[in-house]
Amino acid sequence: MALTEVSSNRCFGGWQKVFSHESATVGCTMKFGVYLPPQAEENRVPVIYWLSGLTCTEANFIEKSGAQRYAAKHGIILVNPDTSPRGLNIPGDSDSWDFGVGAGFYLNATQEPWKKNYRMYDYITKELIDIVTSNFNIAEGRQSIMGHSMGGHGALIAALKNPSLFKSVSGFAAICNPIACPWGVKAFTGYLGPRETGRWEEWDATELVKRYRGPPLGILIDQGLGDQFLHQLNPKNLIEASRSSMHPAVEYRERDSYNHSYFYIASFIEDHIKFHLDHLI
Amino acid sequence: MALTEVSSNRCFGGWQKVFSHESATVGCTMKFGVYLPPQAEENRVPVIYWLSGLTCTEANFIEKSGAQRYAAKHGIILVNPDTSPRGLNIPGDSDSWDFGVGAGFYLNATQEPWKKNYRMYDYITKELIDIVTSNFNIAEGRQSIMGHSMGGHGALIAALKNPSLFKSVSGFAAICNPIACPWGVKAFTGYLGPRETGRWEEWDATELVKRYRGPPLGILIDQGLGDQFLHQLNPKNLIEASRSSMHPAVEYRERDSYNHSYFYIASFIEDHIKFHLDHLI
Repeated sequence: MALTEVSSNRCFGGWQKVFSHESATVGCTMKFGVYLPPQAEENRVPVIYWLSGLTCTEANFIEKSGAQRYAAKHGIILVNPDTSPRGLNIPGDSDSWDFGVGAGFYLNATQEPWKKNYRMYDYITKELIDIVTSNFNIAEGRQSIMGHSMGGHGALIAALKNPSLFKSVSGFAAICNPIACPWGVKAFTGYLGPRETGRWEEWDATELVKRYRGPPLGILIDQGLGDQFLHQLNPKNLIEASRSSMHPAVEYRERDSYNHSYFYIASFIEDHIKFHLDHLI
Repeated sequence: MALTEVSSNRCFGGWQKVFSHESATVGCTMKFGVYLPPQAEENRVPVIYWLSGLTCTEANFIEKSGAQRYAAKHGIILVNPDTSPRGLNIPGDSDSWDFGVGAGFYLNATQEPWKKNYRMYDYITKELIDIVTSNFNIAEGRQSIMGHSMGGHGALIAALKNPSLFKSVSGFAAICNPIACPWGVKAFTGYLGPRETGRWEEWDATELVKRYRGPPLGILIDQGLGDQFLHQLNPKNLIEASRSSMHPAVEYRERDSYNHSYFYIASFIEDHIKFHLDHLI
């Protein structure tokens, strides 16, 4: 799989790069960001994947999170993909900001006209991981995943559906129970069909956590209490659902006054990287 | 002078805010960012002004520099204004990205049709400082200034033309000798008239540094050696010109491979804040 370097910027002693490639999974050109810390020049290092929220491209996290500082300090590769296929011009894919382009919801669609291309789940958990593992200096098996909002949902389901693929998972203001909120109901209806199909529960972290039977998985849920979208996120549904199944317990951190923005993410991204490091060693 | 709060985001334990106000100096509504660290809730703290480069608004620094982390750590207020008047629709003000809107060059224009509104020098060094000093918890007289590219030029002339107004000044990839580069020649011709008027030297840091006779002023010039605009910046002209006049000497730091972007700024903004702190104590 050939990668094309789109940009390369020196940053905190390493390199912030963006690559594009032709994706067989989603059927279009996809871009992703990679931060390569100085340590990766000589040694294999752990990787943390970042999944972004609604409307984002690969640029938001790169430009606004400030995560490179901590990745350089701790010797971690960061990889952040786009949030949907692009450039396909599927009818209706750009009618709203919370469905279609920029809003792939990290699942595999089953409905027309989405099911051929809107396969972000397979893209992230298979194709992207293969590309990253074979092109960069990754320490085998030492990978974790995190995300924001829709990307927090994506990170959670990627980890819960694939026991032992990731050492740990964390979410900033994650959509923890999409079948119980307007964003999730709209997306799942469009991509998966009506709830009666029984398919929704396969892509909902609060449902998946109840039946998780894999090895111990570190889970951190982080939530700002000034978040304007709190009614979409339902972190406590996930915490409650996890009580019977998760060992160790899901770690839940509330942040007084913080909202849904990248100012919130920037403030606590180091905490998350440290959380993952504890599981990646 | 009434301030309107445009936005407010919790960030690193403090608040990143944007305010707007009617500016008497430039004759339009102006916006600026203020980061208020937790220390400023109870105590008066130093302030560092940031001046942005061509095409920027107040948003770029706020979203991309990551400076809030260090301002919170060290107890510093950060203030960053816009780069020009806006919304005036002066004929020609939006014809190019390096002149007019987004490109005020931090001087007072003398030519029509710019001289009434393009007075960013007075705006920064008088009106904005007055507003900030009277509205926020600033420790009197403890202020420094820094900037990027066109904003590095602005910071340098603001400090060199006003001995003792700022304790120190620093520039990232500053336009150090605008009368000797295409960006500066275009801007100065438009705003000040032809070079023969003798006005250009009043707004050029390399010229001003030769005649500086004020109290000791800390000056830090920071330059990435992979900067795609290095031919516009001429840091060594300033260093050379400063040899006869500056005590202590101008500090010059070169950064291997870094370019002109905010990835470069983010990598070294803490160094600059520490440099200013040494002068602000």
